[in-house]
Amino acid sequence: MQCRIISIGDELLIGDTVNTNASWMAQTFTEAGIEVSRIDTIKDELPVIKEVTREALASDSIVITTGGLGPTHDDVTKQAVAELFDSELIVHEETLSFIKKIFAKRNIPFSESNYRQAEVPADCEVLLNTQGTAPGLWFERDGKVLAVLPGVPYEMKHLVNTYILPRLRKTLLGTEVRRSYYLLTSGIGESTLSDEVIGELDSYLNTGVSVAYLPGPEGTRIRIRGRAPSESALEERLQPLIGHIREKAGAYIVGEGKDLRLAEAVGTVLLQEQLTIAVAESCTGGSVADALTDIPGSSRYVKGGVIAYDNEVKIAQLEVNEDVLKEVGAVSKQVALQMARGIARRLGTDIGVSTTGIAGPGGGTKAKPVGLVWIGFWNKDQHFALRAQFTKDRLANKKRTTAVVMEMTRRVTSNIEEMPYGLKKQPA
Amino acid sequence: MQCRIISIGDELLIGDTVNTNASWMAQTFTEAGIEVSRIDTIKDELPVIKEVTREALASDSIVITTGGLGPTHDDVTKQAVAELFDSELIVHEETLSFIKKIFAKRNIPFSESNYRQAEVPADCEVLLNTQGTAPGLWFERDGKVLAVLPGVPYEMKHLVNTYILPRLRKTLLGTEVRRSYYLLTSGIGESTLSDEVIGELDSYLNTGVSVAYLPGPEGTRIRIRGRAPSESALEERLQPLIGHIREKAGAYIVGEGKDLRLAEAVGTVLLQEQLTIAVAESCTGGSVADALTDIPGSSRYVKGGVIAYDNEVKIAQLEVNEDVLKEVGAVSKQVALQMARGIARRLGTDIGVSTTGIAGPGGGTKAKPVGLVWIGFWNKDQHFALRAQFTKDRLANKKRTTAVVMEMTRRVTSNIEEMPYGLKKQPA
Repeated sequence: MQCRIISIGDELLIGDTVNTNASWMAQTFTEAGIEVSRIDTIKDELPVIKEVTREALASDSIVITTGGLGPTHDDVTKQAVAELFDSELIVHEETLSFIKKIFAKRNIPFSESNYRQAEVPADCEVLLNTQGTAPGLWFERDGKVLAVLPGVPYEMKHLVNTYILPRLRKTLLGTEVRRSYYLLTSGIGESTLSDEVIGELDSYLNTGVSVAYLPGPEGTRIRIRGRAPSESALEERLQPLIGHIREKAGAYIVGEGKDLRLAEAVGTVLLQEQLTIAVAESCTGGSVADALTDIPGSSRYVKGGVIAYDNEVKIAQLEVNEDVLKEVGAVSKQVALQMARGIARRLGTDIGVSTTGIAGPGGGTKAKPVGLVWIGFWNKDQHFALRAQFTKDRLANKKRTTAVVMEMTRRVTSNIEEMPYGLKKQPA
Repeated sequence: MQCRIISIGDELLIGDTVNTNASWMAQTFTEAGIEVSRIDTIKDELPVIKEVTREALASDSIVITTGGLGPTHDDVTKQAVAELFDSELIVHEETLSFIKKIFAKRNIPFSESNYRQAEVPADCEVLLNTQGTAPGLWFERDGKVLAVLPGVPYEMKHLVNTYILPRLRKTLLGTEVRRSYYLLTSGIGESTLSDEVIGELDSYLNTGVSVAYLPGPEGTRIRIRGRAPSESALEERLQPLIGHIREKAGAYIVGEGKDLRLAEAVGTVLLQEQLTIAVAESCTGGSVADALTDIPGSSRYVKGGVIAYDNEVKIAQLEVNEDVLKEVGAVSKQVALQMARGIARRLGTDIGVSTTGIAGPGGGTKAKPVGLVWIGFWNKDQHFALRAQFTKDRLANKKRTTAVVMEMTRRVTSNIEEMPYGLKKQPA
């Protein structure tokens, strides 16, 4: 069945807010098997809301609106819906006491305009919103469903997860089972992955099974999506495909999960092997440490690091040899090697990684252009550096270098010899 | 005049992509004085594209579409538009040679499907796209304008800035001048800023002048927008208002500019005063150093730092007293003070800042709950710590702590006594 999303809000048309609500709903509904046919973004204007909602109900079986449920005079969605159904607004007692309680708890005086928030069209079902003050509304008529939701993201998501999805699943989807698997890969380009490593998948792509490659800053996520009449039928359809992809792309697969982050996968491997790590950063300026420590519990394997932006700091804090630095410069294989070993020794960790490069946009020369980065690695068995060349975009260079450092660490720790993006280990 | 935006693309309705193109266009057009009435997000389906475009042209004078101009069979926008105007697709020679040159340069074989990219509806004007391969199209008929643009963000932006905006400004806007000023504030809550610090602005808000408060992670941006028949009239309308806001909000204003970042403002002040800084981070894990070093040229004032995630590192690298640490714990005023002074001494900088806290979501106790952070500051004249209490959100805690550290640094360096968010200096 098809669904129309109507996003109501002047701020969306002025460009002050990006319509992430609609994307989240589109993604969530698609995963649940509900196809979104169209997303309309319109103003907080009563006649427009009425017209677009009427037109949507004529063509789609499910219509979801967000926005315009606040207490100000700009919020006209409820009035528009009431008029659309030849209804009127009445005070919903349960909602009224709920709102009054919240205001009392926060010591805010309850004013006239707050009564508006407890008003709902007669003949609708009220969906109590425990995450905010505006209730959601549910209308079912002639095989059509209209859900009217608040625009505040966590309130909208709460209502979609608590009421909308379960009801839609029950009413319309029968017993069909749907699932999406996500495999995160890193250190390989999207086209190389799809065309050369994994290749043609036609024999695995039968009814209800699809594969998509979703590129991102940390790597390409492979989404395998399937639907079938039952759990066992779904497994039967998906497992051969997933197995084939894992077999082909093995070394490049960092882990599974829609929101899996590279830093999390690295942390998992370090914990498994009971290894600790320290970072010595120059051009990445803290980005690597920041990424690693975003993961809860990372203090178990990240001991710390040094941001050696100034060459003096490289010498004094990381035991980089002053003569070598003067001779070959900070952005060099030798300095990267020394920084990686230096930080591991200083902080007493199993692994030391380093970055030294030219982040840009300025600072480059013919011999050492902007975007050149040396990445060092040290542990008791290996000591090498990778030479990478990025572009002129400072922020992208930081992000991409950070991803390479993490993927390099994951691979070495997992005993994978090949380095990210075909970069070659240059041993000490 | 009113504008309709039509975003074409299945990926938008599956939720794989957030519609940032539409937001960027909405923002850009609004700044230029063109009102966006509605944004329709639709599928790559020929009849839908025809129908929605036809309907849009009936109600708005300007219609912009993005998407569906690629070489694959899913890309049907040009065919839809050709049919809409009872026209047909013809090969545009100039575009064809341009595309062939690009392919030759990148050593990619030119195939059959690539001819499609050089096809355009007869009777349209072709907008050469130097940033990609799909040309934009421009139609003008009966006082209406239809612009058909590629969906790749930087290509779309290039065409909007190069062709669309200048043409719309010339044709439709006359000599009216518009401008938006942005003032970034930090270290004060949005409502306090608008209600108590700046207050009521009615006497300054005349025709064509508006003020909006746009909250963000680093602070609240104040947008002052105005339009007038001439430059001088515009200045006359806006300057009193801007002056009044600067006078009222003075200390909280970090700087001017739509995209100004807090790290940039801090860098400017440090450079002005010729001061250097070093950071000692525990719970922020590199986030402060990362933010500061995002700014090109930051190596002139950022010497480096230490990420002291492990207590051993705090002791060995930052001269934190082992007994003190054992007695009061790492998350304490004393340790924050010692870390700040320790890093400045170690790296020989004018300023040392530190963070030590409980990022979460776990690790809290009754005495020291999750979100508690001590922020230290040291320079030759001042040595103090701030005690902040954030929430349970690890990533938000890192970001917010980083913003407080930067704003604290900016204020001390600018001789502003008041600390962010009313936090009190607790001296050594």
